[in-house]
Amino acid sequence: MLKVPAIVLNVKTYAEATGQKALEIAKLMQQVSEESGVSMAICVQATDIYRLANEVSIPVWAEHICPIKPGSHTGWTLPEAVVDAGAVGSLINHSEHRLRLADIEFSLSRAKDLGLDTIICTNNVATSRAAAALKPDFVAVEPPELIGGDISVTTADPGIVSSSVEAVKKIDDSVGVLCGAGVKNGVDVRKAIELGSDGVLLASGVVKAQDKLAVLRDLASGV
Amino acid sequence: MLKVPAIVLNVKTYAEATGQKALEIAKLMQQVSEESGVSMAICVQATDIYRLANEVSIPVWAEHICPIKPGSHTGWTLPEAVVDAGAVGSLINHSEHRLRLADIEFSLSRAKDLGLDTIICTNNVATSRAAAALKPDFVAVEPPELIGGDISVTTADPGIVSSSVEAVKKIDDSVGVLCGAGVKNGVDVRKAIELGSDGVLLASGVVKAQDKLAVLRDLASGV
Amino acid sequence: MLKVPAIVLNVKTYAEATGQKALEIAKLMQQVSEESGVSMAICVQATDIYRLANEVSIPVWAEHICPIKPGSHTGWTLPEAVVDAGAVGSLINHSEHRLRLADIEFSLSRAKDLGLDTIICTNNVATSRAAAALKPDFVAVEPPELIGGDISVTTADPGIVSSSVEAVKKIDDSVGVLCGAGVKNGVDVRKAIELGSDGVLLASGVVKAQDKLAVLRDLASGV
Amino acid sequence: MLKVPAIVLNVKTYAEATGQKALEIAKLMQQVSEESGVSMAICVQATDIYRLANEVSIPVWAEHICPIKPGSHTGWTLPEAVVDAGAVGSLINHSEHRLRLADIEFSLSRAKDLGLDTIICTNNVATSRAAAALKPDFVAVEPPELIGGDISVTTADPGIVSSSVEAVKKIDDSVGVLCGAGVKNGVDVRKAIELGSDGVLLASGVVKAQDKLAVLRDLASGV
Repeated sequence: MLKVPAIVLNVKTYAEATGQKALEIAKLMQQVSEESGVSMAICVQATDIYRLANEVSIPVWAEHICPIKPGSHTGWTLPEAVVDAGAVGSLINHSEHRLRLADIEFSLSRAKDLGLDTIICTNNVATSRAAAALKPDFVAVEPPELIGGDISVTTADPGIVSSSVEAVKKIDDSVGVLCGAGVKNGVDVRKAIELGSDGVLLASGVVKAQDKLAVLRDLASGV
Repeated sequence: MLKVPAIVLNVKTYAEATGQKALEIAKLMQQVSEESGVSMAICVQATDIYRLANEVSIPVWAEHICPIKPGSHTGWTLPEAVVDAGAVGSLINHSEHRLRLADIEFSLSRAKDLGLDTIICTNNVATSRAAAALKPDFVAVEPPELIGGDISVTTADPGIVSSSVEAVKKIDDSVGVLCGAGVKNGVDVRKAIELGSDGVLLASGVVKAQDKLAVLRDLASGV
Repeated sequence: MLKVPAIVLNVKTYAEATGQKALEIAKLMQQVSEESGVSMAICVQATDIYRLANEVSIPVWAEHICPIKPGSHTGWTLPEAVVDAGAVGSLINHSEHRLRLADIEFSLSRAKDLGLDTIICTNNVATSRAAAALKPDFVAVEPPELIGGDISVTTADPGIVSSSVEAVKKIDDSVGVLCGAGVKNGVDVRKAIELGSDGVLLASGVVKAQDKLAVLRDLASGV
Repeated sequence: MLKVPAIVLNVKTYAEATGQKALEIAKLMQQVSEESGVSMAICVQATDIYRLANEVSIPVWAEHICPIKPGSHTGWTLPEAVVDAGAVGSLINHSEHRLRLADIEFSLSRAKDLGLDTIICTNNVATSRAAAALKPDFVAVEPPELIGGDISVTTADPGIVSSSVEAVKKIDDSVGVLCGAGVKNGVDVRKAIELGSDGVLLASGVVKAQDKLAVLRDLASGV
């Protein structure tokens, strides 16, 4: 189970984080995690899970799993396959990969059967409440309009973080809460934790950075 | 470019063809392809491309690519990523993963930009005509009701194969035609070729077989 | 707001309930509702809302609304348009029309803005909990495998009804609960109410019946 | 069958063209069509087909039909239902409502079975070729980036119109071609016809106009 507070990086399908480049980022994260003692995990493309999982010791997660069992599902992402490749967790329902409610629930049950940690991504307080009712390990609230932007959710809309934490805990206080969108530095991370969250989910802040090592160290300093 | 006549295996998300088991099947295919000189390719899950491509010499294909460019597309299958992992071709629009027309066209253009071979899967003569108009390397016609069944399309509905060949060639005679659904043995392969196709696309006939080596040799004998 | 206990009929896209035939069913429901005093509502195709709403006094509902605002959305179902046509409520997330979590939440907010009553359909206890967290007027739990079948959910799986009632009320006791799947007669309705629900959601039990008037009277007798 | 050259208006889900307002636009189109002798058709929301079809004599079309037969399809748009409500044609695969290839083909076959005229919308020359191979009554090419904009496709990208006409006719010269995106006045219509098309498909140019009657008369003057 992911140790908290945590910094979870989603590398999406950025060119700067595909294949060998994803591996390089994972190695930097491992270095900073070891230096700082801060818990870090990396979510990568299905194609890259195997090569990362064999080379780094930080948790490697899938960016998505499909709500399916083994069988006739050409080209979909089988939960067993990401586990077999070395993933130990998965994002579910990222704002760039939204799922039907019944499929979120089924993906979650598949993940639990296979021992995968889970983060259900949500877009506001109401959907955070609903996601918490499904009992994932974490809910990660990310206002879609702030994703990929220059202003951190912790600055632009701190209320959505604190309200999501409160709403989730009221539904089920065993469910963790992360926040994301625009998170870029240690100040944002510190603010996220002060607002009651268990850490951050971020992407471009690291992937698009010139000096990824410096950014990772700065992020870790906020914990 | 895939040599024809070809036997293309799609291992889907079968438990019997995930991870190490996909690799074992690929090695058997390589063995039979070398023994017989018959062109063979294997389409595997995104998670498995990297480990197969590093270990076998037969063409490794993706089962699917998404109609996207590098960027913010969490959990989708980036064409660049399957190429980076070692794939040399991709199925597009498999009946278990149907795409919007504009997305088929865009996936195809992305594949061409990256040098991937392409098979657009179709379900009848009319959609085979439409797919051919998009100029993929191959159209693979598979009546959905026969997929995974016990009777080969070449027996159950030979007319759909010969009509698709005729329709595709009339639109663009540089586009190859494969057929699939229920294909299981060398007789089916021979019949497919006699009907004018360039080979077969199959799945459960090999993946679910007890003696995969024997089935692959039988299939090769039909060429 | 829909009076409870209620019998809610979803006529789907059955040939037996399209156009004039939907109107005839609505008139029978109105007759039985007036005779018995039992609250009844009919959910119809978008094409049929206008002609029913102008001819019957029972509540006419939409089977679905799309998570959109007025604008460029060719061929989708605008909430304002169903209101304009005369609908007073809408199903959301029927098992034959499942929506992404964020879209359920947005559809619900659109419905509330426009004064539409809402039923979020769910498939099990976990999704009922999640739906309740979104605060619709009702959650309607229907195990998909029993929909359209011969055995009522109240007989085949009474536990899913009572557990959903309990789970929903624990999240928000202002949210009503309906149940459905296989409901066909007054005994099923009575059992549904005994299990704690506020009524039933049914379809083929009425639409496919030879003597619809008799079936509606029998259903009403269960309240 | 729609007479050509034709001016086809798609009112989408604009607030300015919902319910009674759609009817008012249809009446203006009827007036201008009668005055000028120019063939006009209006595509409206499913909710509005019935009330328009009973009040105007110009062809009323659906904006979309779903690839389904009568049955258990809650909230989808049944082809029989739009016919029953009075529609005589349907758009298929509008860029705001794109369909899978197999679903375009099935929607088209359903439309033909029911005697509905059909326009398959496409986004470029390649998809226009593919659509023509399916034998609809018309293909309407609309570059998505120009839809809703201020510059007509006939000015911004005349080549896509002439190339689509040529490509479609080469596949099947019985298939008509419309063009659209940014069309706003008679000059645009005249240019569309000069480029070889059978007319235009437009939306905001009329729906958002202050003086709709004047715009319709101007459009008609271009034929």
